[in-house]
Amino acid sequence: MEAVLSAKDEKLYERLAFKIHRWVEQGTLKPGEKIPSVRAMSLQQRVSVSTVLQAYFLLENQGVIEARPQSGFYVRALLKDLPPEPSVSKVSQSTVKVGVSDLVSRVYEAVRRPDVVPLGAAAPSPDLLPTVSLHRKIALASRRFAKAGISYDPPPGNEALRHQIARRSIEWGGTLSPDKIVTTCGGMEALNLCLRAVARSGDTVAIESPTYYGVLQAMESLGIKVVEIPTHPKDGASLSDLKLILKKHKLKACLMIPNFNNPLGSCMPEENKKELVKMLSRERVPLIEDDIYGDLYFGALRPKPAKAFDRDGWVMLCSSFSKTLAPGYRVGWVAAGRFQAEIERLKFINTVATATLPQIAIADFLETGGYDRHLRKLRRAFASQVQRVTEAIHRYFPKGTRVTRPQGGFVLWVELPPSVSSLDLHHKALKEGISIVPGPIFSPSQKYLNFIRLNCGHPWSERMEAALKTLGGLAGGL
Amino acid sequence: MEAVLSAKDEKLYERLAFKIHRWVEQGTLKPGEKIPSVRAMSLQQRVSVSTVLQAYFLLENQGVIEARPQSGFYVRALLKDLPPEPSVSKVSQSTVKVGVSDLVSRVYEAVRRPDVVPLGAAAPSPDLLPTVSLHRKIALASRRFAKAGISYDPPPGNEALRHQIARRSIEWGGTLSPDKIVTTCGGMEALNLCLRAVARSGDTVAIESPTYYGVLQAMESLGIKVVEIPTHPKDGASLSDLKLILKKHKLKACLMIPNFNNPLGSCMPEENKKELVKMLSRERVPLIEDDIYGDLYFGALRPKPAKAFDRDGWVMLCSSFSKTLAPGYRVGWVAAGRFQAEIERLKFINTVATATLPQIAIADFLETGGYDRHLRKLRRAFASQVQRVTEAIHRYFPKGTRVTRPQGGFVLWVELPPSVSSLDLHHKALKEGISIVPGPIFSPSQKYLNFIRLNCGHPWSERMEAALKTLGGLAGGL
Repeated sequence: MEAVLSAKDEKLYERLAFKIHRWVEQGTLKPGEKIPSVRAMSLQQRVSVSTVLQAYFLLENQGVIEARPQSGFYVRALLKDLPPEPSVSKVSQSTVKVGVSDLVSRVYEAVRRPDVVPLGAAAPSPDLLPTVSLHRKIALASRRFAKAGISYDPPPGNEALRHQIARRSIEWGGTLSPDKIVTTCGGMEALNLCLRAVARSGDTVAIESPTYYGVLQAMESLGIKVVEIPTHPKDGASLSDLKLILKKHKLKACLMIPNFNNPLGSCMPEENKKELVKMLSRERVPLIEDDIYGDLYFGALRPKPAKAFDRDGWVMLCSSFSKTLAPGYRVGWVAAGRFQAEIERLKFINTVATATLPQIAIADFLETGGYDRHLRKLRRAFASQVQRVTEAIHRYFPKGTRVTRPQGGFVLWVELPPSVSSLDLHHKALKEGISIVPGPIFSPSQKYLNFIRLNCGHPWSERMEAALKTLGGLAGGL
Repeated sequence: MEAVLSAKDEKLYERLAFKIHRWVEQGTLKPGEKIPSVRAMSLQQRVSVSTVLQAYFLLENQGVIEARPQSGFYVRALLKDLPPEPSVSKVSQSTVKVGVSDLVSRVYEAVRRPDVVPLGAAAPSPDLLPTVSLHRKIALASRRFAKAGISYDPPPGNEALRHQIARRSIEWGGTLSPDKIVTTCGGMEALNLCLRAVARSGDTVAIESPTYYGVLQAMESLGIKVVEIPTHPKDGASLSDLKLILKKHKLKACLMIPNFNNPLGSCMPEENKKELVKMLSRERVPLIEDDIYGDLYFGALRPKPAKAFDRDGWVMLCSSFSKTLAPGYRVGWVAAGRFQAEIERLKFINTVATATLPQIAIADFLETGGYDRHLRKLRRAFASQVQRVTEAIHRYFPKGTRVTRPQGGFVLWVELPPSVSSLDLHHKALKEGISIVPGPIFSPSQKYLNFIRLNCGHPWSERMEAALKTLGGLAGGL
């Protein structure tokens, strides 16, 4: 039986786990070393025995420590020996006409194929989602709101859902108002609407490099030009570079994933977010912020979105429930600040409305379904899966391979030795029944030829390990 | 108990009703005149008594005839006294930068308000939709396809649904293949994807005038220029004018609603459709065909879409289930011919996927839910409602008012005396709790200042009649 914890205890054990993780990272606790006993730690940190147990359990899940029978907890040996992180992206700061290939459809095709090992598309395993519970909510909604459920729900979208989204913004110090939110057909529609609201064909938008290929394709289809900001795998976009870009280019917007960039996993420090919003607001350049991974942090606290520092409505915060609850429900949202009216208009133009019942079901789940409890489990699962895949890369991939250390989300960005073509690897892997995403599609200038992105959204298994072994072998042979 | 009819009988009685309707229109049967008894008609037309009864029942529903107790069936008095039809739209054939106002949001806002009489947005009443049955299908789908139902269903979308759509195309002589269909978040997404596939900012697309405002707004937001084709309220777009336009402009596409244009209700004759497709294919100009009202014909036979005459894949056929089954499910589709791959790519970019469970539910309903039976009832209801509203316009609207005679769909296009501003009327009506759509938003050049569109998607009622009386009084005072 799972121990019932109060919100206060919850925070305590997560903080303790975070602290211990830090000690390990800094080398305060060394690989193979025994960590203090539960009782000792409890006395030392002035927390209850159960808090310590919870923290150790979390760290074990994350692969940081391991229990040895009748002996205690030990720092896992591999942690310090992992492949180094990839270097900062080097990009020329000229605009590039976006030209992303059709690999994407092949990657997503694999989603439907149960015979393919799903290391490609960034989708959480349905086994980790509250499927039965959510589906029950949709059946319930169809009975309770029969006529409303079959009717159009025009922009801004379902009121109960907007209320729940606004309520949850309190967690990161936000004060979103339900009237300032528009629900959308997933996060991707939200991003499209934001782009259409502020940029036209021929305009320039700055993005992180690398960044999510869907966004690059959307910009390509809208004729929007792109300028890439060098982006650090830990701290995210370089603000000093952005400063130069702002001087050189007339930007219509800046589109970023400050929390757990896809594919980098980078998380921009709070002070940078503050500075970013200040810098852009001063220049009256809108920030389109994709926070779709924001709730999936591995640390003790939810990182704030840049929107938390938005005073003048220049930040358009986009998110969805596709990475945390139900990709197939297609429910996302945007809090568009000063662009609210335009976004409502564009939402109507693009798809008229978001499907009604899925919105009601998610609103109900947020209100009564234990979303926070679900998120806690999900974060632990993703942290552990990311760790397992990282270890497998260390074990099976060729020398010279580097891999990111994301502190949230569920993807890894892997730099292979320079000789390896990730496009070749993608083809070869698919033949072996393994789906991965090749690096070049994450950049309009087709950089990252020797990079791949790996999805860690599925529970660790022997099949996964075998696939990574095969993948490493293939990469070694290229 | 409803009589069970075979498909053959069904066609017979619909054909008979159509024939009688024609007689009335031509004056063969005059208003107030008694029509042949059931037995007489049965002998005369060599059909069964029950076929005649069904035909008379249908005509009664459509408001063409009425039963008088112990006497028989009579042609209704009002039919020939109705207001005349509006004249053909006169438009300059120069391109216009689209600039449609924000009235739209006010119109759609009224959809949610039960206190407002819904003569505005073109939405069917939920009372006419198979709400309970469809909702049951969604609950069933969530149990049967638990994991698949929560997962992404990437383009081209749900296979069972695509199969059902393809199967139904046989009815109009189509041979759509499931692989050549992409499901979308309603018909509006389908139209957006088609526009994005073939036109860029600065390009020119030809449209009917008047036409659906959502499409005009979409083109405006994409920076697409528009050239308007004069359109007849009965036969649709003028092909001779289109010929001239093709000579004068480099068109990137032609976007039309050949079957029951919204707002005109016009239905292009088959030979025109054939000629249209031939003309455009020769010039390699894609036809984006919106067939969303195609299943809602009042006559005996479903009018073919232009796609039926498409030999080289230049026609992109768009439709949805929003007017016939469930606006709130947001399920539409496009059969894009030679643009299939590009549409799949754009669908992914725009919204990644369509909500999974609503697609499964609709596929199931199409397969087992009695969709044809539902459509027959729905057509009768709409035909009757259109007739009732037409009569009320005759009764209550100022002299000089003209109104269309649509042979399908559920909207009326009303030309008020030239002095009446439909924008003023819209404001005044909304104050009285009545929603209507003013004419100028159906044209990028803001024509149709004295036109309004009326939604007849809701069952006739005293409240509706009172609203039309109020509306007529307001129009008379302007």
